[in-house]
Amino acid sequence: MTQRWKITTEYDGTLYSGWQKQDNVISVQTALEKAIAAFSGQEVNLAVAGRTDAGVHALGQVAHFDSEKEFTARTVRNAINAKLYELKYDGVVVRQAEEVSDDFHARFSAKHRVYCYRILADRSAPLVLAENRYLHNRNKLDVDAMQEAANHLLGHHDFTSFRATACQGNSPMRTLERVHIRDASDENFYHGQYLEIWVEAKSFLYNQVRNIVGSLIPVGEGKWKPEKLKEILEACDRTKGGKTAPPYGLYFMRVDYD
Amino acid sequence: MTQRWKITTEYDGTLYSGWQKQDNVISVQTALEKAIAAFSGQEVNLAVAGRTDAGVHALGQVAHFDSEKEFTARTVRNAINAKLYELKYDGVVVRQAEEVSDDFHARFSAKHRVYCYRILADRSAPLVLAENRYLHNRNKLDVDAMQEAANHLLGHHDFTSFRATACQGNSPMRTLERVHIRDASDENFYHGQYLEIWVEAKSFLYNQVRNIVGSLIPVGEGKWKPEKLKEILEACDRTKGGKTAPPYGLYFMRVDYD
Repeated sequence: MTQRWKITTEYDGTLYSGWQKQDNVISVQTALEKAIAAFSGQEVNLAVAGRTDAGVHALGQVAHFDSEKEFTARTVRNAINAKLYELKYDGVVVRQAEEVSDDFHARFSAKHRVYCYRILADRSAPLVLAENRYLHNRNKLDVDAMQEAANHLLGHHDFTSFRATACQGNSPMRTLERVHIRDASDENFYHGQYLEIWVEAKSFLYNQVRNIVGSLIPVGEGKWKPEKLKEILEACDRTKGGKTAPPYGLYFMRVDYD
Repeated sequence: MTQRWKITTEYDGTLYSGWQKQDNVISVQTALEKAIAAFSGQEVNLAVAGRTDAGVHALGQVAHFDSEKEFTARTVRNAINAKLYELKYDGVVVRQAEEVSDDFHARFSAKHRVYCYRILADRSAPLVLAENRYLHNRNKLDVDAMQEAANHLLGHHDFTSFRATACQGNSPMRTLERVHIRDASDENFYHGQYLEIWVEAKSFLYNQVRNIVGSLIPVGEGKWKPEKLKEILEACDRTKGGKTAPPYGLYFMRVDYD
């Protein structure tokens, strides 16, 4: 009898060429598929909730696969992690494995996706202990102005201005459910102003979160007024928006299913 | 006229063989001295508040040197950082440079030193995004029991049981001013129980903080009772204590001067 496994994974995006399997590079998908094959003796093709780019991290990426032999959830998690270690795929682990019904699909059953973008601002010195985990912004950021700007993007819109030109989605329409900009400096272990930008939707366009963050930063620095985000949105023109924020500040946090 | 410079530095201990200059390895001291020589044209010998071991991080390590030419504080900070970058000494920066009077000494003027040890516990999966920044402990830890245990160490004692046998200090007597164990899981971006162990004293013996942490962990896991720390302390015998906790969870946070 076939078992379907939902696995929740964590990875350091800076060590891989993104999620997606490709020739001549090492992707997170390749690492996990090789580890699953090594423990189960079976080639699998992982389906995933959200394909992340090179450099983008995950704390709660979800994928699924089917196994022909029977295992316990604990074995699946520990065996994949042991094989990842043996095969020297650093920086990727399975946090949880759960048996799910055979109509579960990591991508198509997903109802809600949550990303977080981390910034360490108001700091002259380059990042050291926070390198590759936060975007470094020398100037202090005005959180209230950024939140006001972000509020213009909430709801159902044509997000062409925040969509990578390479995006292959059929439609530029998306519903942005929540953007919350949090000054978490009090909880920060490192030196600087620590911001978290939480972004939630059922689904996202290619580079949508990084392009939104790239337009919020000039607002935080006082170079743009918050209303500028409304103008950018309405222009439906990617060239009107800010630059794409770098990948290493972005985390795929969570996927919700029914 | 000679200027004396106090520099506050941050570094990733996993990239260096500790603070101290040594033959055939690259130390934090070497990196900083080469960068200072490159910008000022002058060889310097840095005096430091606390020599840290390989793997131990710093967010507020303090050192001093004298310059013969005149500079502004901003130039000193930015020029050292630019040279560190040019010379490819990753993972070390100067956060602040301040001109101080010529009776200031980074080591001998220090009145108070603060360390913090970070643990990510109650988590089966190996660390990924928190690797080399936290100690990973699979089991959940009892913070109250650890605090009760730590309280037995407060005050003026012979700390032989928590002193590396290689320690060259003249006396095993030290005054432990504060040990605060903080369950900061609510503020944790990663998955797991996040503990910070803050330890403060005028000065420490070699490996003292890591040896204290190594004896608090078995208490947190319920393997030892809190009173065991009193027995270990009174035994004045290093072999009675827990093992030395690994360096990469430890941060030299701050030095206070008059």
